[in-house]
Amino acid sequence: MTTLAEAMRRARELGWSVLGRTSPNPAVGAVVLDAAGQVVGEGATAPPGGPHAEVAALAQAGERARGGTAVVTLEPCDHTGRTGPCSVALLAAGVARVVVAVPEPTGQAGGGAERLRAAGVAVELGVEQAEAEDGALAPWLLGVREQRPQVVWKVAATLDGRVAAADGTSRWVTGPDARAAVHRLRATCDAVLVGSGTALADDPQLTVRDVPGADHQPLRVVLDRRGRVPATARVHDDAAPTLVSRAAGPAELLAELWDRDARRVLLEGGPTLAAAFLRAGLVDELVLHLAPQLLGAGPALTGDLGITTMAGALQWRMLDVTTLGRDVQVRYRPTRHTGSPRPTEEGN
Amino acid sequence: MTTLAEAMRRARELGWSVLGRTSPNPAVGAVVLDAAGQVVGEGATAPPGGPHAEVAALAQAGERARGGTAVVTLEPCDHTGRTGPCSVALLAAGVARVVVAVPEPTGQAGGGAERLRAAGVAVELGVEQAEAEDGALAPWLLGVREQRPQVVWKVAATLDGRVAAADGTSRWVTGPDARAAVHRLRATCDAVLVGSGTALADDPQLTVRDVPGADHQPLRVVLDRRGRVPATARVHDDAAPTLVSRAAGPAELLAELWDRDARRVLLEGGPTLAAAFLRAGLVDELVLHLAPQLLGAGPALTGDLGITTMAGALQWRMLDVTTLGRDVQVRYRPTRHTGSPRPTEEGN
Ligand SMILES: NC(=O)c1ccc[n+]([C@@H]2O[C@H](COP(=O)([O-])OP(=O)(O)OC[C@H]3O[C@@H](n4cnc5c(N)ncnc54)[C@H](OP(=O)(O)O)[C@@H]3O)[C@@H](O)[C@H]2O)c1
Ligand SMILES: NC(=O)c1ccc[n+]([C@@H]2O[C@H](COP(=O)([O-])OP(=O)(O)OC[C@H]3O[C@@H](n4cnc5c(N)ncnc54)[C@H](OP(=O)(O)O)[C@@H]3O)[C@@H](O)[C@H]2O)c1
Repeated sequence: MTTLAEAMRRARELGWSVLGRTSPNPAVGAVVLDAAGQVVGEGATAPPGGPHAEVAALAQAGERARGGTAVVTLEPCDHTGRTGPCSVALLAAGVARVVVAVPEPTGQAGGGAERLRAAGVAVELGVEQAEAEDGALAPWLLGVREQRPQVVWKVAATLDGRVAAADGTSRWVTGPDARAAVHRLRATCDAVLVGSGTALADDPQLTVRDVPGADHQPLRVVLDRRGRVPATARVHDDAAPTLVSRAAGPAELLAELWDRDARRVLLEGGPTLAAAFLRAGLVDELVLHLAPQLLGAGPALTGDLGITTMAGALQWRMLDVTTLGRDVQVRYRPTRHTGSPRPTEEGN
Repeated sequence: MTTLAEAMRRARELGWSVLGRTSPNPAVGAVVLDAAGQVVGEGATAPPGGPHAEVAALAQAGERARGGTAVVTLEPCDHTGRTGPCSVALLAAGVARVVVAVPEPTGQAGGGAERLRAAGVAVELGVEQAEAEDGALAPWLLGVREQRPQVVWKVAATLDGRVAAADGTSRWVTGPDARAAVHRLRATCDAVLVGSGTALADDPQLTVRDVPGADHQPLRVVLDRRGRVPATARVHDDAAPTLVSRAAGPAELLAELWDRDARRVLLEGGPTLAAAFLRAGLVDELVLHLAPQLLGAGPALTGDLGITTMAGALQWRMLDVTTLGRDVQVRYRPTRHTGSPRPTEEGN
């Protein structure tokens, strides 16, 4: 007998496990319980064109779904796209109850709950909604609202906020555990982004390596308006696709990536690009890897932001703290973007 | 029935509770268990001239100590200073067993265990020794080894390692919980130290405020070689004693403070003084308060250290991570001091 909370947590995990491989579709997770409350099916969104989470979970459950409960992170769709409506699949399987975390926010696919209810299925919406919205659905939900990909800025810094030494070297600020975490993070993203400065200084490969089960490589993106990065750079090897962009700024670049169906972008650039994204208010999450080192010199986390007083500082909210071997990871969300749009708030 | 591990943990806590008020004596904690293993006495080192921890715990226990066990963080002394030998007090009280974390490292006071054993008392040395050495005894043990006070560098920085904004303001980098933690930290120190730059820029009072039970103010110390800090500065109010030092450098200053019986000094200076201590290899612990803010400009945690490559970085070992409201506290110990004395290690 699995509790609803356990099933919903598992559904969130299933969604998270496919994040980075479902765009432009949401990374949904679904769990099917039989009438006795036993887990009989699990599913997550397949890559575009493949089955949705509910359909995968129902396929696993087969006849055992009849009279059971489907627990799913996003309201089942009711429209026929590349796959049939999930609402219809749930009805066909004979589930008695559907428990949903996040109601479908787009007009297009909405209505699944309605069709299910009309057919006599008990539907609950909004169950542990905040947790699901904060999880694997976050990039897709942000896309629905803002028509742009989510931007996660990952940066490894010393205790004094340096991302490289005075001579420009940044190998290795952090230890192996933090670097492994970066590969896992990349695997959840559709694209990984650096500026020409980083490509030239560090010659990173920007691929997902040594992540069990990761069968996908995010698009590698280099912002290189002057074409300074040579064809011999590692980012141009054949391990993954690469886009060299001449976009004028972060917003233009994100529009390009949106058009390529990217919904989650990892910003791994240096202080110049970080400052450009911060000034544009286009960083949605910060993953800071804090290395137990002091340099006393070298480029800082971010270039100049035009801020001169403490009152003008960009403010963040901590999500969680983890230790990664000798390093500390802290994740943040912005609570106030750059002051530029609201200069009056930054007075005193 | 209290286990030995519980009694030893409590003894360490008792030692910690008086840290900052016992110098030049060690902050020792003691617990007395009766023959049945019940706690019948607790004690910690009193200010100089007052009773040692064992004597205080025995006084509380009275006759119930007979046949019991004394659990103490440091080997009982055997010499008659301002107080009588603790070894004699333990014999007089009739304890059957003495359990000690750290053997007495100085010749002068040593021998307590020997006298007790000679009198038929069972003595165990080295029980949870590392924990005790890392705790409230650390400053005193360092003093025994190096004849100088322990230096704890406390610094509040933004995520990009800034300790102040470009205009020099640093009020407030961190939130109320972190600031309260600083007051608790000050209460454990004999002296609190800033450079003239901080005294002039922030005009801090450097006192212990709002710490329940803290009845002592550390010595306030300003390193001000050119006499720039005015008599009207808050550091000169009558809330605590103040020393204005013209010491040429960190080592000289620590010698001055050692002569005033300081064994634990909190460095709260700016990047200039921090760099001077780091270059001299005279920081023993770093308490970093990381504020969820980004500035993009302003003075960094530490001034230049003469380090130009990642390989030359000062290395630290994390002790623990705590959240303090919206801020994160991470504590570190150095694993490699400034490279200056060992240039060969810093090659590539
Ligand atoms: N520790 C870490 O996590 C980490 C991560 C990355 C880099 N780093 C270090 O950071 C340093 C490189 O810093 P960086 O600032 O030069 O790297 P960067 O931010 O990755 O690249 C900067 C370059 O990006 C290009 N760019 C394209 N579009 C831009 C736009 N809209 N706004 C701003 N720049 C744009 C610019 O060159 P064009 O004008 O030619 O296009 C600019 O010079 C290296 O030392 C590297 O080791 C450290
Ligand atoms: N966020 C934080 O935790 C924090 C803490 C402290 C300060 N701050 C900020 O830091 C800034 C002040 O920085 P700062 O570097 O000027 O302050 P500082 O390091 O406290 O003071 C520097 C001054 O100390 C004097 N000094 C005396 N002996 C010295 C020695 N051996 N080596 C080096 N200096 C010695 C020097 O003046 P003389 O040559 O005249 O003696 C020097 O100018 C302010 O903006 C303040 O707000 C922030």
